Amino acid sequence: MKQKKVAPAAITIFGAKGDLTKRKLIPALYNLYVDNHLPADFAIFCVDFLAVEAAAYRDYLLEGIDEFSRTGKADRAKWAAFSARISYIQGDFMKTDTFGELKDQIKKFEDKEKVRGVRMFYFAVAPRFIEPIADSLCSHKLCNRDTLDRIVVEKPFGTDLDSARKLNRYLSKRFKEKQIYHIDHYLGKEMVQNIMAFRFANHVFEPLWNNKFIDHIEISVAEEVSVGKRGGYYDSSGALRDMIQNHLFQLLCIIAMDCPKAYEAEAIRDAKVKVLKHIRPFTTDQVFKSVVRAQYTAGSVGGQARPAYREEDQVAKNSTTETFVAAKLLIDSDRWKGVPFFMRTGKNMPRQSSVIMIQFKDSPHKIFKDDIEPNRLIISIQPELEIGLVFEGKEPGLHMKLVPVEMDFTYKNDYAQSLPEAYEALLLDVLEGEATQFMRADQIEWAWKVVTPILDAWKKYPKKQLQFYESGTWGPTAANAILKPYAKEWFHLQHDGTTGTTPAAFDDARSTHLNGDGSATPAPAAKTTAPA
Amino acid sequence: MKQKKVAPAAITIFGAKGDLTKRKLIPALYNLYVDNHLPADFAIFCVDFLAVEAAAYRDYLLEGIDEFSRTGKADRAKWAAFSARISYIQGDFMKTDTFGELKDQIKKFEDKEKVRGVRMFYFAVAPRFIEPIADSLCSHKLCNRDTLDRIVVEKPFGTDLDSARKLNRYLSKRFKEKQIYHIDHYLGKEMVQNIMAFRFANHVFEPLWNNKFIDHIEISVAEEVSVGKRGGYYDSSGALRDMIQNHLFQLLCIIAMDCPKAYEAEAIRDAKVKVLKHIRPFTTDQVFKSVVRAQYTAGSVGGQARPAYREEDQVAKNSTTETFVAAKLLIDSDRWKGVPFFMRTGKNMPRQSSVIMIQFKDSPHKIFKDDIEPNRLIISIQPELEIGLVFEGKEPGLHMKLVPVEMDFTYKNDYAQSLPEAYEALLLDVLEGEATQFMRADQIEWAWKVVTPILDAWKKYPKKQLQFYESGTWGPTAANAILKPYAKEWFHLQHDGTTGTTPAAFDDARSTHLNGDGSATPAPAAKTTAPA
Repeated sequence: MKQKKVAPAAITIFGAKGDLTKRKLIPALYNLYVDNHLPADFAIFCVDFLAVEAAAYRDYLLEGIDEFSRTGKADRAKWAAFSARISYIQGDFMKTDTFGELKDQIKKFEDKEKVRGVRMFYFAVAPRFIEPIADSLCSHKLCNRDTLDRIVVEKPFGTDLDSARKLNRYLSKRFKEKQIYHIDHYLGKEMVQNIMAFRFANHVFEPLWNNKFIDHIEISVAEEVSVGKRGGYYDSSGALRDMIQNHLFQLLCIIAMDCPKAYEAEAIRDAKVKVLKHIRPFTTDQVFKSVVRAQYTAGSVGGQARPAYREEDQVAKNSTTETFVAAKLLIDSDRWKGVPFFMRTGKNMPRQSSVIMIQFKDSPHKIFKDDIEPNRLIISIQPELEIGLVFEGKEPGLHMKLVPVEMDFTYKNDYAQSLPEAYEALLLDVLEGEATQFMRADQIEWAWKVVTPILDAWKKYPKKQLQFYESGTWGPTAANAILKPYAKEWFHLQHDGTTGTTPAAFDDARSTHLNGDGSATPAPAAKTTAPA
Repeated sequence: MKQKKVAPAAITIFGAKGDLTKRKLIPALYNLYVDNHLPADFAIFCVDFLAVEAAAYRDYLLEGIDEFSRTGKADRAKWAAFSARISYIQGDFMKTDTFGELKDQIKKFEDKEKVRGVRMFYFAVAPRFIEPIADSLCSHKLCNRDTLDRIVVEKPFGTDLDSARKLNRYLSKRFKEKQIYHIDHYLGKEMVQNIMAFRFANHVFEPLWNNKFIDHIEISVAEEVSVGKRGGYYDSSGALRDMIQNHLFQLLCIIAMDCPKAYEAEAIRDAKVKVLKHIRPFTTDQVFKSVVRAQYTAGSVGGQARPAYREEDQVAKNSTTETFVAAKLLIDSDRWKGVPFFMRTGKNMPRQSSVIMIQFKDSPHKIFKDDIEPNRLIISIQPELEIGLVFEGKEPGLHMKLVPVEMDFTYKNDYAQSLPEAYEALLLDVLEGEATQFMRADQIEWAWKVVTPILDAWKKYPKKQLQFYESGTWGPTAANAILKPYAKEWFHLQHDGTTGTTPAAFDDARSTHLNGDGSATPAPAAKTTAPA
């Protein structure tokens, strides 16, 4: 809430040559610097395996800002001042000298500043490097002051319940819980943070936020992108691990949680864990009834041809990995008993769109004959930032006729200033020791506990009910079946930047049903596309 | 709801030379005609005392459309076709030949059309003519078919409970209840009708619509106009009779009513009467504690000088008639016990503005330190047509900080077409026999029952606590006192066409307190203006 005084900071990024560093971390740190959010004294140590000249490395980072920063091209004078704080350390994460060198440089910085400030170690690395880096940080006593030293770990946090537990145990033996920041950038998004304010600072919404008034909830995270260069990782992961277990579950927790006892990290995370604990466990039978998985075939997105998933680089030609998941979850709590939560995510969809749709129940007593549209609260997280309430109003005119109308709150209309990116908010949180928007180890394990039976069932029956959808569509029509009897189709993620007032999802779906063995069953009135 | 087939219509307007006919009734009928809402066969008989040439009278009406119609200047071809249906009948309302002549003309129209259709008789006349006209309509059997013939009566319906009862008895001996349309044009306003849809077709609002969630409600009807040429009538009436007993009570009923059993006239009027029945009666003591009356002094509105009320034409120099009323009402029903309804109206205010503000209670459990702004629903009836919900959101930025934000639904943004005027909707309702938006006799009597103790107290103590306010201000500061402890000041009626997110009423109030005897007590930090 109130801005805290930030101590001098030594920021280390492992994975200095990775995409995340170039696209997100450095642009975020640069914007924090420009907006005067970083402490006066800071240094950034970028560590990676490749040999790069210091000047060339800075140019490489500058390119990243110019291309990816929300503020556009960097101001050259500010960049010069900022980049003077950046050092590149060439080193193998598996070798101990790397950490000796890092320690020398951090010491030198701290000695010069005469203050031992915050140390942040960001693990922007492949999962196999997490344990060795953690180990070396410990053995070199680089991260040993629990009030000042923090590590930031990126997903994936394991690949199932067992591996996540193992990783958590490994880290918790080396660091205090409060030193470990599990980052999920969805939690740093402006609208995601706003949901907390919306729900808990307003007495008009919370009384309606339960099974007495809510009919069902849909959480959609559609990605326009394909797996791209991530095929190697993705093919052993899939959408359930890559998106549902983390991002969508974060949204679920924020939407479904009880009001925390206080606005502070432990209370908020307790309330979130409670949601996950109450999700009804999946039996194998339920997996095939309530969860739809699908894989994209060739098609086009925004006019550009896209190859089938099985044709992507580093993907197995007979891969059964899902690029789309739609699932129905039940939460067996007093608040949510009987209210299904529907979630879906997919790649190669017509557009990027993350939307939560809360559909309210009908009035018990209807006095208007044409009172047929349900009330809906639509929370658009990206690319639009908007909260809309769809209700019925009188159509202007001489007779009483109802039409669905919408009340809107849009961030961009209300605030001219451009919004900070998720990574800016989250990196500053780490520097300030604010863990509210980070996941706790037990939350990660509970999330794995929910999805592991689904992973197990799919592993056992790799082709059973595997669907296919043409790239550039909203997924397989089979995804609509799990909505019954609550809805006929998924809430429409509009193309025009507005939330829809009528449900019309999948109206342009041209999906193909496959029977797991590769034989195609065209959906009714759908164009058939054979998977690769 | 569905448009009904309209029978041929003989429309009679008593008071053909009056302002209402020129400004409202003929423009409304003309627009209904242009939009094809009138039956193919109709005739308009305009009756008044003055001798006017038919052609000159039509020109006079055309002027009225050109100046006052929402659609602007009349289309000359359409006007020619429309005005050919208009006849002017010169006659004294007190004389029987007037009605003989009217009957002949109506008969001639009906004989030509070979169908006995609807007859509507609009009483756009001073109250003293109502009974004689009603009597003559009866004696001439002009309004004797209860399924087809209707009279429309304009306010004032009496001047207190006794006179209203007398008038109702007089009319009910001559006509069936269902033939009598008591018109209050507030009920024809688009947003007023929309409140019914908003409340009863949406399950998200009704659960909050009670004393568990609502803190208090303010109903404001500010008029920019002075009494103008109406001084003679107004000085014996005052704001309580002229505005509160009818328009503001209509708004109160629609906001406070329970859901009617059905969307039909009797059920709706039953529900409204129930509200009025439950208003806690005023004792003389309560009148002086909970009701503030005031009179405007000289000042300026919109840059134009305005004389004091006592300087207006036909107003007594020592008049104690109020041009402003603010009152606190309590409704002793299960739904509203403990929720005060505050109402205010006044003339010579800075701008015209009718707004209902519903303030919700605070959350019982607050987790944000800066959670201080209450939730408010703001229904703007005129000149804006808007429903806004003020709630707290996260201020965009790197820390969790709350700011009040607003979700809006605005008619004009959502519908490009221009909206029909209240009189269009209501005149069509009368032709269609739809009484939903009209007052029933018992409702009028209950409304008088509420205000009569206030009138009696003021009559007994004509100068007691009479306040004065400068023209062009929002009224006397004394009006704020009755809000305690619910609010410090009235909801701000903005000048810029938006609903406000913060309460800041009376910030430009420059009011003067007078002690009934004319001696001025300046309000703290207020400019003193002696009344005339």
